Amino acid sequence: MKFTPPPASLRNPLIIPEKIMMGPGPSNCSKRVLTAMTNTVLSNFHAELFQTMDEVKDGLRYIFQTDNRATMCVSGSAHAGMEAMLSNLLEEGDRVLIAVNGIWAERAVEMSTRYGADVRTIEGPADRPFSLETLTRAIELHQPKCLFLTHGDSSSGLLQPLEGVGQICHQHDCLLIVDAVASLCGVPFYMDKWEVDAVYTGAQKVLGAPPGITPISISPKALDVIKNRRTKSKVFYWDLLLLGNYWGCYDEPKRYHHTVASNLIFALREALAQIAEEGLDKQIKRRMECAQVLYDGLGKMGLEIFVKDPKHRLPTVTGIMIPKGVDWWKVSQYAMNNFSLEVQGGLGPTFDKAWRVGIMGECSTVQKIHFYLYGLKESLKATHPNYAFEESNGFH
Amino acid sequence: MKFTPPPASLRNPLIIPEKIMMGPGPSNCSKRVLTAMTNTVLSNFHAELFQTMDEVKDGLRYIFQTDNRATMCVSGSAHAGMEAMLSNLLEEGDRVLIAVNGIWAERAVEMSTRYGADVRTIEGPADRPFSLETLTRAIELHQPKCLFLTHGDSSSGLLQPLEGVGQICHQHDCLLIVDAVASLCGVPFYMDKWEVDAVYTGAQKVLGAPPGITPISISPKALDVIKNRRTKSKVFYWDLLLLGNYWGCYDEPKRYHHTVASNLIFALREALAQIAEEGLDKQIKRRMECAQVLYDGLGKMGLEIFVKDPKHRLPTVTGIMIPKGVDWWKVSQYAMNNFSLEVQGGLGPTFDKAWRVGIMGECSTVQKIHFYLYGLKESLKATHPNYAFEESNGFH
Repeated sequence: MKFTPPPASLRNPLIIPEKIMMGPGPSNCSKRVLTAMTNTVLSNFHAELFQTMDEVKDGLRYIFQTDNRATMCVSGSAHAGMEAMLSNLLEEGDRVLIAVNGIWAERAVEMSTRYGADVRTIEGPADRPFSLETLTRAIELHQPKCLFLTHGDSSSGLLQPLEGVGQICHQHDCLLIVDAVASLCGVPFYMDKWEVDAVYTGAQKVLGAPPGITPISISPKALDVIKNRRTKSKVFYWDLLLLGNYWGCYDEPKRYHHTVASNLIFALREALAQIAEEGLDKQIKRRMECAQVLYDGLGKMGLEIFVKDPKHRLPTVTGIMIPKGVDWWKVSQYAMNNFSLEVQGGLGPTFDKAWRVGIMGECSTVQKIHFYLYGLKESLKATHPNYAFEESNGFH
Repeated sequence: MKFTPPPASLRNPLIIPEKIMMGPGPSNCSKRVLTAMTNTVLSNFHAELFQTMDEVKDGLRYIFQTDNRATMCVSGSAHAGMEAMLSNLLEEGDRVLIAVNGIWAERAVEMSTRYGADVRTIEGPADRPFSLETLTRAIELHQPKCLFLTHGDSSSGLLQPLEGVGQICHQHDCLLIVDAVASLCGVPFYMDKWEVDAVYTGAQKVLGAPPGITPISISPKALDVIKNRRTKSKVFYWDLLLLGNYWGCYDEPKRYHHTVASNLIFALREALAQIAEEGLDKQIKRRMECAQVLYDGLGKMGLEIFVKDPKHRLPTVTGIMIPKGVDWWKVSQYAMNNFSLEVQGGLGPTFDKAWRVGIMGECSTVQKIHFYLYGLKESLKATHPNYAFEESNGFH
């Protein structure tokens, strides 16, 4: 028994500094959520794990505002949630309409194409939502099996209104798939009332849980479509008939499917309990108030927001336009090195154009917003001594 | 803004009892591993996360005994690792040969079929490995693109020798895919020397890390096959060209792929550091010694082992035959209720026939083995007062 020697890099201790994670996610988790992960790892045969999974389902039905039985988690990132939906609802040749104005919709195009779907797109500017009229016309033109919409786009900070879209879809025998990764618990979302057929969100975003597990829910209509597929869905790991059975969604005896990440389930359970204790309405109001404090503070510094129209802004992610002549990366680095503050840059439509600030998880307090504004301003001043904050707003 | 009320089930505190997890995985993690998860969640833009990922890669190359650049983790369970390999290496119509004698190979058949592969199987008894001759003849007959083998089968406790198999595969232009979920760090494994092309293991098994993240490695030859696919792999989430880029395997600038489960990466890093500190040779010897203590103790109790031939036994998972007239589930329940000890039942070939005991993670000490033997015996006695331990071994 001879082996190559162990690597030297593992001899050092693991040191992860505390940081204030105010980018567009992952956000900071509460101590309660982090501590939950130190519980004993449980396997698929333990009653305490099944009970915790049931409680997670209760919490998810609450935050999605749905009665859907098929409410569960995918053992993977939010990208896995997106792909689980597309791989279950689309078969080769099925037509899907994707409304593209940010990078998540682009990902949906890429994934759907790989599964052999007939992908149609409508494109729009990154800072304005699609109107109900535009969506209706596109549905009438393409007659898709599914429409994919991003509710809150973390690459831009845009909020897409959903009222009425589900009804239009169902008038045209089309299912509505919604990406609520960055929006859920930051703005109202009513899965059943809005007739959304499939939704997924990000644990590590507004919910304040760690990444690696992704809440999803599908309507009875969508479940019927999956049950009546001509072919099995390509991906065993995400087969929602098997996964839903394992999560106890279908009133059948449970069959082993895969080993769930018990410790992430414990953490998500605690994040959901914290949301339930405060109440969705107060959570959302708090984040909207934080967003207003942020907008006011940025305005006073003469900084503009990527999404111009306040009613189209996602309160949980805000794009801050990088002023002319400013090296955004230098500012971000300074903020991290001096304030342990994440001032994250843009992605997709905001790349090199904006910073993105998140009001998610534990970072959704007015105090944290003031700290962010302070840190951003000091970092701007320190890295750009000649930068003049606009006179009109009182800063020099 | 009106919502349905929050669920009552989330009002109770989360209480997960401490348990001794001596089933075939997940196993108990060390305090150091569990505590690592309480570090700040980091996103894809933080140097500390990238450094930790590099250290994880170093540790994985060590435990796989490989120089493969394409060594990384899939953000999902070991099943996701299996499916990532199959979805990357197989295209529609590609022929794969699967050696079936336990439930993991059956899963590989199911997955490969869904991806449209031309699936061929050879079947064998669950308690005897495939001989090199049998494998060679099957490769010659079927001329597959890939051969799938389970190194250590946790459904039976069988160890499949791998020496020489890679060489035979390569003489026939075939790639060797190995499931090392339950075996790695419990028995020697030499990826490069044995010419294994694709391997995955389970974090929550012998390694003693939490579930939800899965180490994988692929050879340069397998990477070439993936690079030269006629079609893109179906699953974006597991595309090893994109994932490997993100894990910094290919000396290219990193591109965002998905949000990794940073806290599981921290935990895995600590599990690997503990293995590196002790050394692979000592880890493996320790588990082999534990297995011997277990075999001896079971023998003294008159209990038989599912895999008869000692040289074919996987030291990390042992199937204990359930004696005639014994209700295995009653025994398991008693052990859990009275000793917080997991005495897990069988799965696949051992279902209703054997208990399965794991020597994995923190449960790989002689002390724990003695406790298991004690707990099993007391539980057997208490639930079956008339059960006679065989006289020959001194127990009555």
